[in-house]
Amino acid sequence: MWERNLVLSAPGKVILHGEHAVVHGKVALAVALDLRTFLRLRPCAEGRVCVRLPGVGVVRSWDTPRLQALRRGFAGRRWEPDPAAQQLDTLREFAGIAAGASAPESLATLAFLYMCLAISAKYGDVLSVDILVWSELPTGAGLGSSAAYAVCLAAALLTACGAISCPLKEGESTARWTEEELTLINSWAFQGERVIHGNPSGVDNAVGTWGGALRYQSGKITPLKRVPTLRILLTNTKVPRSTKVLVAGVKEKILKFPAIMNPVLDSIDAISQECQSVLEAMPANPSPEYYPVLEELFDINQHHLNVIGVGHPSLDRLCRVTASHGLHSKLTGAGGGGCGITLLRPDTSPLAVEAAKRDLCACGFECWETNIGAPGVTLHSFSSLNAEVLHALSES
Amino acid sequence: MWERNLVLSAPGKVILHGEHAVVHGKVALAVALDLRTFLRLRPCAEGRVCVRLPGVGVVRSWDTPRLQALRRGFAGRRWEPDPAAQQLDTLREFAGIAAGASAPESLATLAFLYMCLAISAKYGDVLSVDILVWSELPTGAGLGSSAAYAVCLAAALLTACGAISCPLKEGESTARWTEEELTLINSWAFQGERVIHGNPSGVDNAVGTWGGALRYQSGKITPLKRVPTLRILLTNTKVPRSTKVLVAGVKEKILKFPAIMNPVLDSIDAISQECQSVLEAMPANPSPEYYPVLEELFDINQHHLNVIGVGHPSLDRLCRVTASHGLHSKLTGAGGGGCGITLLRPDTSPLAVEAAKRDLCACGFECWETNIGAPGVTLHSFSSLNAEVLHALSES
Repeated sequence: MWERNLVLSAPGKVILHGEHAVVHGKVALAVALDLRTFLRLRPCAEGRVCVRLPGVGVVRSWDTPRLQALRRGFAGRRWEPDPAAQQLDTLREFAGIAAGASAPESLATLAFLYMCLAISAKYGDVLSVDILVWSELPTGAGLGSSAAYAVCLAAALLTACGAISCPLKEGESTARWTEEELTLINSWAFQGERVIHGNPSGVDNAVGTWGGALRYQSGKITPLKRVPTLRILLTNTKVPRSTKVLVAGVKEKILKFPAIMNPVLDSIDAISQECQSVLEAMPANPSPEYYPVLEELFDINQHHLNVIGVGHPSLDRLCRVTASHGLHSKLTGAGGGGCGITLLRPDTSPLAVEAAKRDLCACGFECWETNIGAPGVTLHSFSSLNAEVLHALSES
Repeated sequence: MWERNLVLSAPGKVILHGEHAVVHGKVALAVALDLRTFLRLRPCAEGRVCVRLPGVGVVRSWDTPRLQALRRGFAGRRWEPDPAAQQLDTLREFAGIAAGASAPESLATLAFLYMCLAISAKYGDVLSVDILVWSELPTGAGLGSSAAYAVCLAAALLTACGAISCPLKEGESTARWTEEELTLINSWAFQGERVIHGNPSGVDNAVGTWGGALRYQSGKITPLKRVPTLRILLTNTKVPRSTKVLVAGVKEKILKFPAIMNPVLDSIDAISQECQSVLEAMPANPSPEYYPVLEELFDINQHHLNVIGVGHPSLDRLCRVTASHGLHSKLTGAGGGGCGITLLRPDTSPLAVEAAKRDLCACGFECWETNIGAPGVTLHSFSSLNAEVLHALSES
């Protein structure tokens, strides 16, 4: 039985280049966003499993024997990493979640139950634990918050049942798992994502697990070898949008004007590849000359995303406001509202950043100063956590 | 000797699609702009040739015998349609124009003298005429004002020396020349353009001569068969720019990011071709459904022009202002400032147009409501001219 307190975190993700084009076989670059989801796991003596997700209003607990009975009840089926519709139906019924419920709290609860039971079935029971998850990431903004949640759950549950080690040594502030262990974490996180999203690409959980940056094309995920950490502003326009409708709109435009649109997708593909080259060259040779290139790629891609029809007046405004501070922005993810990213240079002054943030907030946007190329899933000592995270995790 | 008064006019031009891409072998569409240059030719008894160009402050006159002596002085050289450097040097000296002078008044005077003498040498003297040229076109704004001037001069001088007919019959308000005569007008107008520009493409004088729309690619000019007349706003941001610097900047971007930029040029090429198809389909089937397509092509190309680096904040503003009135705009010509065109639908209300014009003027821009696809060089009866043109041409 697990007897240690654990704190671990996983990053969100943003698409740096290639959103939408990736649907049509082009390269996308996804990078880890240093807005993180934190999970605290505590052993508890009472024979109960508790899960608290204050961000989505979930406080649930179940008697361990009931969970064990539920797991045993799946006679003839193993809890393989592959959620079957029938298993999920049973779990929904157990947790009192309506069929087809798609609210974040329902899906988060379902994913927790599935991962807890499946991992217990395969590696040994995860019993009597109290799990609290708190995130710096907004949900439903295309920033990989569900994947960060699934990665944290996978890492915590696999560690608690002994399937992977607990690499954090006494006196260390952070630690990460071995490559092999990360691969296991990622594969279970992907199953959690499948519970939540049905048919995810696997990009978000890979970014949450490995961090840094990765290239995605036609189902193939390739982590970039070394990537720099880049300062950004992440801005949420808070304009709601439907990814499905936007993706369909792009497809329609391509069918309507193939000779005009296909070259634009080719150009986006070349932007992703150029950006990859720049990112891979930067750590060895951290010259300031790379930043104007990255900025130019942002500007070009933002125009292309407008051409394929996924821009929005709120995103135009975001770009205009940051341009007035000499900064370069593009939408990230689905577009049509949602989030934009603004590149900051290493020498962009705090005053300039504050001025840009103030103007963005004055538009009604929410704005974070953070980094991309952040580390993947990480174990933390309590003493290394900042005050806000400590405060959030000490709720009980 | 010519004894009739003539009034004729030629249209300006705008590039509808393909500016800059045309330099790299792609298709451009040029259309006739219904802001016109008017020329009035009057016989005068005094044995003098007078030319007045109030728009550029030119009032010159020469004794006919001096011009005849000048023409005869070119012993051994015929005044072929091909201005030789030596001929131009002689004409500069005669007119007191400094070598290398590039002011519009110098070039306009030089082109007049060259065309007058060369046409006289070939077809018979153009003697004792008084020519007044007045234009609705701003000069130096990339709207083909020099070509409209050269087309008017060619048509008037060729008519006056009897090389072509005077097709305007008693009681008619306008008339045009035969295809063969237009070809002759165009070839002489091109020589006038060469005097002014050195190495013109020939597109501007072809548009001034034939009107409508034409396709230009790799030196080949093809008039479109039938084109609709489309309402537009033409807006001059009055931001000065250097075409040479802009063209060089595009080339540099292509060399820097070939894989990103070449597809953009391909997409622009496809836009020109799509637009050509739409324009050619419209006269036979004037469905309102064509307008959203034309608007979408404007929007896409404007983004592409920003990508290749020829946008400008003033043009962004122009697009934003017109978008706020539901109208779609793009830069036309060199970009980096200069002019933009805004498509109006047949049913765009005069109130909406006035509101957009007011907002554009409030930005410090100059704005005209006019048409594209206008007729080429045309003879007019005095009685058919509007009051403003009549007033301008009755200056003496």
